Parts: sequence; C-alpha cells; structure tokens
Amino acid sequence: MRGMGLNVGIYGGSGYAGSELVRLLSGHPEVGGMSVASRGYAGQAVAEVYPHLAVEEVYVEPGRVDASSLDVAFVAYPHMESAGVVRDLLEAGTRLVVDLSADFRLKEVALYNEWYGEHPVPELLEEAHYGLPEVFGASGGRLVANPGCYPTAAVLALAPVVKRLRVSSVSINALSGVSGAGAKPSTKTHFVSANENVSPYGLTDGSPRHRHTPEIEAVLRQVAGEARVPEVTFIPHLLPISRGELETIFVELEDPGELPETREVLDWYAEDYEGWAFVEAQREAPQISHVVNTNRARLSAAVDRRAGKLVLFAALDNLLKGASGAAVQNMNLALGYPEDAGLEYLK
Amino acid sequence: MRGMGLNVGIYGGSGYAGSELVRLLSGHPEVGGMSVASRGYAGQAVAEVYPHLAVEEVYVEPGRVDASSLDVAFVAYPHMESAGVVRDLLEAGTRLVVDLSADFRLKEVALYNEWYGEHPVPELLEEAHYGLPEVFGASGGRLVANPGCYPTAAVLALAPVVKRLRVSSVSINALSGVSGAGAKPSTKTHFVSANENVSPYGLTDGSPRHRHTPEIEAVLRQVAGEARVPEVTFIPHLLPISRGELETIFVELEDPGELPETREVLDWYAEDYEGWAFVEAQREAPQISHVVNTNRARLSAAVDRRAGKLVLFAALDNLLKGASGAAVQNMNLALGYPEDAGLEYLK
Amino acid sequence: MRGMGLNVGIYGGSGYAGSELVRLLSGHPEVGGMSVASRGYAGQAVAEVYPHLAVEEVYVEPGRVDASSLDVAFVAYPHMESAGVVRDLLEAGTRLVVDLSADFRLKEVALYNEWYGEHPVPELLEEAHYGLPEVFGASGGRLVANPGCYPTAAVLALAPVVKRLRVSSVSINALSGVSGAGAKPSTKTHFVSANENVSPYGLTDGSPRHRHTPEIEAVLRQVAGEARVPEVTFIPHLLPISRGELETIFVELEDPGELPETREVLDWYAEDYEGWAFVEAQREAPQISHVVNTNRARLSAAVDRRAGKLVLFAALDNLLKGASGAAVQNMNLALGYPEDAGLEYLK
Amino acid sequence: MRGMGLNVGIYGGSGYAGSELVRLLSGHPEVGGMSVASRGYAGQAVAEVYPHLAVEEVYVEPGRVDASSLDVAFVAYPHMESAGVVRDLLEAGTRLVVDLSADFRLKEVALYNEWYGEHPVPELLEEAHYGLPEVFGASGGRLVANPGCYPTAAVLALAPVVKRLRVSSVSINALSGVSGAGAKPSTKTHFVSANENVSPYGLTDGSPRHRHTPEIEAVLRQVAGEARVPEVTFIPHLLPISRGELETIFVELEDPGELPETREVLDWYAEDYEGWAFVEAQREAPQISHVVNTNRARLSAAVDRRAGKLVLFAALDNLLKGASGAAVQNMNLALGYPEDAGLEYLK
Repeated sequence: MRGMGLNVGIYGGSGYAGSELVRLLSGHPEVGGMSVASRGYAGQAVAEVYPHLAVEEVYVEPGRVDASSLDVAFVAYPHMESAGVVRDLLEAGTRLVVDLSADFRLKEVALYNEWYGEHPVPELLEEAHYGLPEVFGASGGRLVANPGCYPTAAVLALAPVVKRLRVSSVSINALSGVSGAGAKPSTKTHFVSANENVSPYGLTDGSPRHRHTPEIEAVLRQVAGEARVPEVTFIPHLLPISRGELETIFVELEDPGELPETREVLDWYAEDYEGWAFVEAQREAPQISHVVNTNRARLSAAVDRRAGKLVLFAALDNLLKGASGAAVQNMNLALGYPEDAGLEYLK
Repeated sequence: MRGMGLNVGIYGGSGYAGSELVRLLSGHPEVGGMSVASRGYAGQAVAEVYPHLAVEEVYVEPGRVDASSLDVAFVAYPHMESAGVVRDLLEAGTRLVVDLSADFRLKEVALYNEWYGEHPVPELLEEAHYGLPEVFGASGGRLVANPGCYPTAAVLALAPVVKRLRVSSVSINALSGVSGAGAKPSTKTHFVSANENVSPYGLTDGSPRHRHTPEIEAVLRQVAGEARVPEVTFIPHLLPISRGELETIFVELEDPGELPETREVLDWYAEDYEGWAFVEAQREAPQISHVVNTNRARLSAAVDRRAGKLVLFAALDNLLKGASGAAVQNMNLALGYPEDAGLEYLK
Repeated sequence: MRGMGLNVGIYGGSGYAGSELVRLLSGHPEVGGMSVASRGYAGQAVAEVYPHLAVEEVYVEPGRVDASSLDVAFVAYPHMESAGVVRDLLEAGTRLVVDLSADFRLKEVALYNEWYGEHPVPELLEEAHYGLPEVFGASGGRLVANPGCYPTAAVLALAPVVKRLRVSSVSINALSGVSGAGAKPSTKTHFVSANENVSPYGLTDGSPRHRHTPEIEAVLRQVAGEARVPEVTFIPHLLPISRGELETIFVELEDPGELPETREVLDWYAEDYEGWAFVEAQREAPQISHVVNTNRARLSAAVDRRAGKLVLFAALDNLLKGASGAAVQNMNLALGYPEDAGLEYLK
Repeated sequence: MRGMGLNVGIYGGSGYAGSELVRLLSGHPEVGGMSVASRGYAGQAVAEVYPHLAVEEVYVEPGRVDASSLDVAFVAYPHMESAGVVRDLLEAGTRLVVDLSADFRLKEVALYNEWYGEHPVPELLEEAHYGLPEVFGASGGRLVANPGCYPTAAVLALAPVVKRLRVSSVSINALSGVSGAGAKPSTKTHFVSANENVSPYGLTDGSPRHRHTPEIEAVLRQVAGEARVPEVTFIPHLLPISRGELETIFVELEDPGELPETREVLDWYAEDYEGWAFVEAQREAPQISHVVNTNRARLSAAVDRRAGKLVLFAALDNLLKGASGAAVQNMNLALGYPEDAGLEYLK
C-alpha cells in the first residue's frame, strides 16, 4: 500500500480512542491503507461494534498486522501493556509510533515506577517526544508520547503562566465525560449510576492520587524549570455527558503583587499559541459544548483580585484534542503535513 | 383554619423553590391549610403548571392572601423584591416568615448594598436568624433568612475547619443543576444549550463575582471570627442535571504544619453535627446522586499532603437542603416540631 | 420480630427493584423487621452498594434468612430462578410471597414454556394472583405475581377499552428508562451507549419477540374474553433517562363506526379506576416527568377520526408502579392495610 | 464574489437550522462567499451567538443582502413568513432558493390552507421541487422545498413499501430531540422540563394534528397513487436529547397474505436507494446514536407475523438529513456537484 498513501495501523482499535482514530484516519487524505487490530474483536467488522462508523474495516488480531509495512502505528493500549508493543513495532521497522498510553510521557523512570509500576521498556523513555505540539513542537523522531487528556488541558492553560510568574499553589478541578472512563462496562459507567450525577474520583485512602498529577507537574517543570512549579492538587470528577472536559484551575503566586490583569493572561495565550490551529484563548470562560466534536482547546482566565488569585479555564474534547485528534495532529507534524490535515472540519 | 393545623402561605409559589414547598407542605402532618400565591399564574391550578404535583390548590393573587391569618409564610421572591413583602407580612401579623431570598442573609447593610443594591428594609436585618440550624440552631424569632444553596454546602463543609485551623486560602469549585438557574426560560436554560455541556458562570469583567461569595465569607466569619477567614474564590458552574449541587473546596493553612489527617476532619464533622438528622460526613467523597431528592447534605474530606492542602466536599439537593427542604426544617425548629417533621422520607 | 410489625424479607435485594423495595419498606409504618438477601453482596452494607439509601441493613446470604418467620417475602430474581425460591418460601411457611419475576404471571403453562422455557414449578400457577389491583382487586391468597412494568401500563390503558369495544388491532410503542434493563453493567447500559440515544429492542431474527407481549395478551383476554383481543404488536425502546416509562398505543376497531369520543374514553377510565389512589386519567397526554418518583400511573387518550384510530397513553415509573411500588401496594391490600400505606408521599 | 466559488445567503441564520447551515457551508469547497442574515442578531458575530462555530461571519440585516448577487439562498424562516421572502429572492434574481420551511412542500394549495392558513404565494407551489432526492431526484429548477424532518424519515421508510404493497393502516410513533422544537426558549424547552422526560405532543383537542401528517400523506400519494395510501396517524414525542430522530412505523396491509419477509423489505430499500450516499438499510433496528452528527438516514424493518403487521424503523439527525444537511445536498444536486460535496465527513 506504500506509495499510494500512508499505511497505518491502529492497536487497541475497539476502545473509544481507537474507534475515534478509525473515524479520523478513514477520512484522512494522506492515508492509503488502515489495519485495525483488536485482541477481543478480531474477525468482527468495526461497523458492527461501532455502528456509527460507516467503515469497511474488519478487526484483525494484532499479530496479523505486518508491522514492517506500517508507516505509522497508533497504540491505544492500557499503560504497562503499551510499552512492549511500542518497542516491538519500532524494532520491526514501523516508521512512526504514536503511543496514546501513559508509558512514555514521563521522562524520569523513577517517577513512572512510583505512580504506575516498574517500567517495562525504560530504554525508550529518552527518545520519546511529548506530543503537545503547541508547547513542544513537532516530533523529529520515531516515537511520540501522546499526552493525557487532563494534562493537555492543564499544561496548555498553565505553561504560559508558569513561564512568566512564580507560582506558589495550583489546584485543578477537572470535569470529564464518561468516555474518559473507557469503554469497558462497570457499575461506575452504568447509565443509571452516571446519569444525573457528578462523582469526584482519583482519591486513594483519603488523598488525591490521580496519575495525571505527576505528568502535569513534570511537563510544567520542563517548561519553566523545577523550582517554579509547586506540587499540584488535582481532583477529577465524572460528569453525566458522553465526551468533553473542563478544567478550572486556581493559581496563587509567590508574590501576590505580581497578579496580572485578565487581559494580560489572554495576551500571553495569544502570543504563545500564535499560528497553531487548535488552541485559542477567549474572554468568556469556555464551555464544554464549544469544543465537543472538535480538536480545539479553548482557554480563558479570570483574576480574583479580592482573594489574590488567578483562575484559569481550559476545555477540550477528551477523545479528540485529549486523545485521538491530538494523535493525528502529531502524526501530521512528524511527517511534515499541515497540522490540520484530515482535521479541517474539527477546527 | 388555625387550630386545625398550621395555616401557611407560599409567596412565589410558581418558581422551582415555591413548587417544591407546595409538595413538601401538602404532605406535612402539622399543616392544616395552604395558600399558594403567584403573581403570574393566579387562577390556574398548581397541578396544571406543575403536573407532577398532585395537589388541589389554585394559585391566588398575593394580595388576596390574608396575611394576618398565616402562621407561617414562605417568601420565594427574587432579592430586592422579597424584603418589602417580608416586612408587610410581619406587620400584618404573620407569626413566622421564612424568606428564601438573599435579602436578610447578610447582617451588614453595607455589604448588601455593595453586592445587591440599596437594601429596601435594612431595619429588619438585625432580627433575622440565619437559617442554617446545624451551625446556628433554631430561630427563636419571627424572621428566618433561609441560606443560599451554595453557602449551605460551603459553610457546612468549612465551619468545622475554620473553627479549628487558621486558614489562609479558600477556593470553591461549585457545580449546580439547572434548576438552580430558575424556572424562567432563557437561552442558558434551553435544553440544547445546557445538555452535554458544563459552563462556568458568575464572572463579571473577567473576575469572579457571584453574590454567594460575601454570604459565605460573612457567615464563616460569624463562626470563626473576622481574622480567621480569608477572602474566598468562588467559581460556580452549570451542570446538565436537573437538580443537585457539589462543591469541591481547596483549603490552605496559615501553618502547613497544622495539616490534619483526613480522619480528623471527618471526626470534626461527626462532632459538630451530632444529633442533626440531615448532615452527615462519610469517608468516600459524596456524589450528587447520593443526595438528590433528599434533604441531606453529605460531606467528606481529603488531605493532599504532597501539595500541603486540604480538600473538602459537600453535596446536597439545591431545591431541598439548598432551599425548600431547609425552609421547612427551619419552620419545624422555630415552631418546636422535630426538625424532620414532614421530611422523614427525605433523610 | 412478629408482633412488633411485619417481618419482611427481600430476595434479590441488590438489583434495582430490590433496592427500591429496601427504600420503601424501611419507611413503611407496618414493617417491623427487614432481612435483605443477596447472593452477590452478602456481608456488605446496603448503604455501601447504594449510597443514596440511608439504611442500616447489611445484605445476608439468602439461606441465612429464616423463611418461617417471614410475614412477607418479596422475590426479585430473574425468571426461571424465582419460581423455586417462591415454592421454598411458601413451603417454609412464609405468610405472603410477592414475586416480582415473570414466573407466575401467565396462567397457562404452555404459554410460559413457549416464551420462557419449561416452568420449574407449574403447580403454583393456578394459585397465583395477578397483582394489578385496579383490575383484579386484592389478593386473598399467599402468592402474588407482580405484573411486568410494560404490561402494567398496557393493561391499565387497554382493559377499559377492550371491555367495551371490539378491537381488531393493537400496536404498542413502549419507551423505558435504562433502569428497566437492570443493574448489571453491559455495553447496552454503558452511559456512552445509552446517552443521547434511543434504541429499539426486543426483536429476534427480524420479528418483535419481547416476553411482555404474551403477558399483555393473556391478561387482556382474562378481562375481555379470548375473542375480543387480537395479537398485540409490542416494540420497546431504551431511552436515555434513568427511570420512567411511556406507552403510546395505537388501537383499531372491528367496527370503525364504534370509534368513541376522547371524552368517553376518559370517562371509562374514571369509572373503572374510581377509588384507586394510584391510577388517574387526564385530558393532556401524560409525560414521564409527571410520574417519575411516584407510584402513579397516568392515562390519556386521543381519537384520530381522520384515520379511524384510537390512541392511548400510559406513563409510570418502572421501578415504582411498574415494580416495587406495586409490590408494596399488593402487600398492603393482601394484608388488609390501606393500599397507600407507606406510599402516601408517592401519590 | 461570483467566479471564486458560489455566493450563498442564509436567511434565518440564528436558528438551529440556520446555524447548522453556517457550519456546513463555511467548509464547503464550492462556496466562495457567505452572507448570514438575521433579523434579531444583525451586527453580532455568529461566533458570539453560537460559540461552537469558529467562523468569522457577522449577522447582517436581511435587507442588506444583495439578493441579485446570490447563487444560492437558504431560507430558514417559519412557515407563512418564508414564502414572501422566497418570492422576493427569485424576483431579485437569486439563481437557486432552498426553502427549509413548510411553505412549498404541499402541492395542493387547499391542503396548505387547511393545515397552515392561507398560502401567501400560491403561484410558486407548482414550480417547487420536493427536495427528497432519493425519491424525487435532483431539482432542475430554481426552487427546492426542503422536506420536513419527520416526513423525510417517514417517506424514506414507507415509499418503497407503498409502491409495492396495498397498505391499509399506517401509525407513526416519532421521537425527536429538543433541537426540533427550535432555539426559542420556552417552558417546554427548559432543561428542567425536558430532561428525564418524554412528552407526546402535536395533539389538539384530543386529536393528533401535527402538520407533518398531510405532508407525509401527500408525498406518499405522489409516489404510489392516491388510492394506495391511507390516512396516517402520526404521534410525535419530545425526547431528552439534543438532536436525532427515530420513527417506529406500524403498517397493516389490505391483504394480510401479502405480508413480506423482513429480508424482502430490506432488499426493496437496497434496490430503491442504490447509489445514494446517505440512505442505507440494515438488519438491526437503527439507533439514534448511529446517525447523530451525520447526514445519514438509516432504515430497517421487522415483520410481526403473529399480529400480521409490518414494522419499519427510520433514524436520522433532524438538523442534518432532516434539515440543513439535506438542504446542502439539494443545492449540490441542483447545481451539478456530487451530492456529498462538503458533506463527505457526514456519511
């Protein structure tokens, strides 16, 4: 298939991120062939499992995909399972791997080991590019670690601030649609449990302990330096919506006298994200409905001068800019296409 | 009607809080007669406007209710409109007035004037009892200021903390169902606007400016003293659910060394709210579905030792413990009935 | 416990119908003791599994309940599993069994065998009382077959019609909230599958084949005679709501000249259901929100004179009048209490 | 702007259909310029009123659009208001008008007058092309009457049947998301009214009387001849979803012996709609989630041999295939472009 467009493979194609990749890549102008692998659904048509996807593809066993023929592989497996598959793909000669798991997002193996368990393939950590292009640019290598959905929103909102101000406290209140909890049925994701409800989660033994916390801290420290980013309090909540994410971020400064005007913060966003198609700041606080079914992240800010605090807002679609849309954007940039190739209608 | 049970009047009976009062009071064992006043719906049957209410009452013009015969009047008018009606009722001889508006919640007239406009009846401020019984006990007088829904949750969660710890920062992330925005149709409350969405609100010119903010601060300062309660950052969000409210509260201490154990905070709640039927703390963070259609407030806490912060959670039904349920509870206590009279099935 | 109120047992107490029974019976004035049995959750507190239930009970192994001491047992097991438990309870001396499964609803064993499989305890079929009191009165015996949720709505709407008119065609379009699909997590009940969706179901090999169909037909034939009730077309749909049910029923007559006025049909309802607390007809078509969280069934009718058809509407809460509310009502009537004992606030 | 792509005008650009047209046309490859007219929002940016639309356009007064320069005008006004605007546009020289109102859908002026009121511009009725291309092909003229959302679903499902079978009874149970009720806020469309609810509507004085009924009948009679199509019973219901529509259609035959196999009906659909991109039949009953955010209509059938009835299913997105998507498809066909130009990602 090479020569007539990219030959792409999707591993974990039956989850929500995987099925969204199928949708995006089946309409991508540069994609020539697509293999969709699933361990649980091999042999079934994708359109049978996800009838809203009007595609012809049939799920295949992961082992049946010829990795050496793939231009790009997207891996949407759980953490700890993804790393080995990524290594095997690279060894087999896949040109570019975009990993949607958490396995290659943290540079420090010790940090990974603390929050996830012993890293299966630490030797690839160094080479992975953290795929938040609006902050870290395009990948020049063969492995992209696609960011977590919550860190995407948090880092886009916070990076321009921590670069400019000495921040002493960050508390993130995060809200996510149920697709963020994955496709596997459980009591938590049962309609009757989630509907007309909001539930805080990510707490262990009475303490916040969601794994996106160290990712947010580590990435912001890469941006601003170790000393300028305090430990982050991160409290996610499950919302009765299918997709979409909103973070409301409370920030305090080392020097309250440095508290900026709302206008200034919006200017920083405009400056830092100029030229990027999918990130935009606005005066009004963003709503989830403004970004759902798009690859956009929308940011805003409010200054609470009474209380001496800065409040930041970030909204995105957790399956698009928070996962599969960003993965395609990363592929586009790594291969030299416009960042919005195949994503034009999601701007 | 006196002598055969209480004669009660509801003013503003066609709003959500008013119609919920109709439901609660029509099944209340001590209520003998009920007049439901509405300026817009006079002459229509209540059950025609709210067909889920299987009651016989017909809305009457407010002026047609004989205020002198009322044992209890509930006033569910907008702020600034309520105060005058309350004064007239008291002057006419109504034994007890429970005001669900904001008009008598702030003791300081200057504070009211700053956030709402010039107070129409400042002379009654002193006598009003702030109707959060679990903190301030039963009213002994003739005027109860029923608390705002957000302050109810915030104060229940924060009062035991500010009494015991020197707090330096409070940020409240509040989530509310659409009934909190009132029954009046608007673009904001249109199903298509609110569904599959979350929208931050309460911002003016890029700054948080929701009117429940000074109420929270003032009430906490009554509890703990002026010096111990900092300015509060309060960011409410509209949720795609009909009713229910959740607050996630980020607290920092003057002395981070004082950071308690989660267990201790739960013990403070147990201690302070012992004997009260409708407030309860629990180890797991409360979910909105745990409290909807009940008069309960459920509290919890988490300690983020990494970041040096305390996180508090409070959930309630904005129309019950956040409004009409609390109003009936206040009536019960003021008149010497058990606090849960007529509310037993809402525990 | 006998002598201090009824001693009741709930089998299958961890499903939705079972947990709703816990809620209703824990506030029932005639109930003195309650055992809640669950095969999967024995040892766990009910309030841990269903945190919105503020009860003290702990799930016990079914075998640990002393059936001989039970005044009333409610059995909320799947069909085919329920029948044997019912038999054992009766043999052990339980005074009254209310079975919420389908096992004793059909009088003809052949019909049961055709739609469900071979009946495990056919000898009890004769003695079971079909627990739709507004049509069949109170049970005088020891076994009540609680009706299916869909048949409750359909029979209440159709019985007064088939008694008076020769009907040639009945098509039922039924809509149900997701709780009707049970508490067990599945792809179908996953929030992301059910939300913003409606799905027809109950079709097998391209034909309608929902098991409530023969129940509706058989019960109506008991009411009106075999010859007057045609085969019924029944198409259920899953709705993105937690609870509630609406049936829209299209009826054609043998003699189109007999087509009544809408008013007449409403009069038949008023006449047949006079004196019953929970069934009511109204001019406006009922909405699900009018009956949710109540034990009501609300009926209405429309006549399409252009097309020569009668359209009937029935709405109820599938977990209350469609299951657990009706079960308590049946207990009340069988034991000589007012039908609304413990259900007053659900009228 | 002519010469650099089509110059299009949208009248009624601030309603839901209008704003969806803005979205579709702003990404259409053949569109060069776009004027968006609104009587109520002139001067405001489209993106201010609909922040999910990332477009530059500003609403203009309808009178400020130069109709003579328009290649295509889309009119999304209420019935009775649309007709005059359509006439004025055609007289001013607009090349093609696609009218989304009901004004030109019925060929018989007497029928229009009976159901809507006196037709303002009856002289254009003859020339209007009913824009359901899968049944009536492309328009060759200058005026397209875009079908109603409910008739689109009904006619697509029924046309192949009435062409082949003598039908004696048709009952349509229709379900629609709240966007079908329009953008204007009302009690009916308030989130709290519509959420967790389903409400039948379209009834007047106890009789079904929705205006899409005569449209369905008239269009089917055009297809199959006057004698073969009986009066249709049509009962719409409002659903708690934002968009999407499902019809469940109960059909009886003059000669029950003609009842086909399910397979045959699916074959008729495949045959009649072969080559059309947006209509497809499938074995499984369609769900609303399969078609939302697409321009698809999905059809299915079930045969109830027990009851001697045929059941048809049709699902579509009321704002796309039921309104704006179809309007763009009609424009494409009328101007000789592929039917899916600008709609590729909605297949």
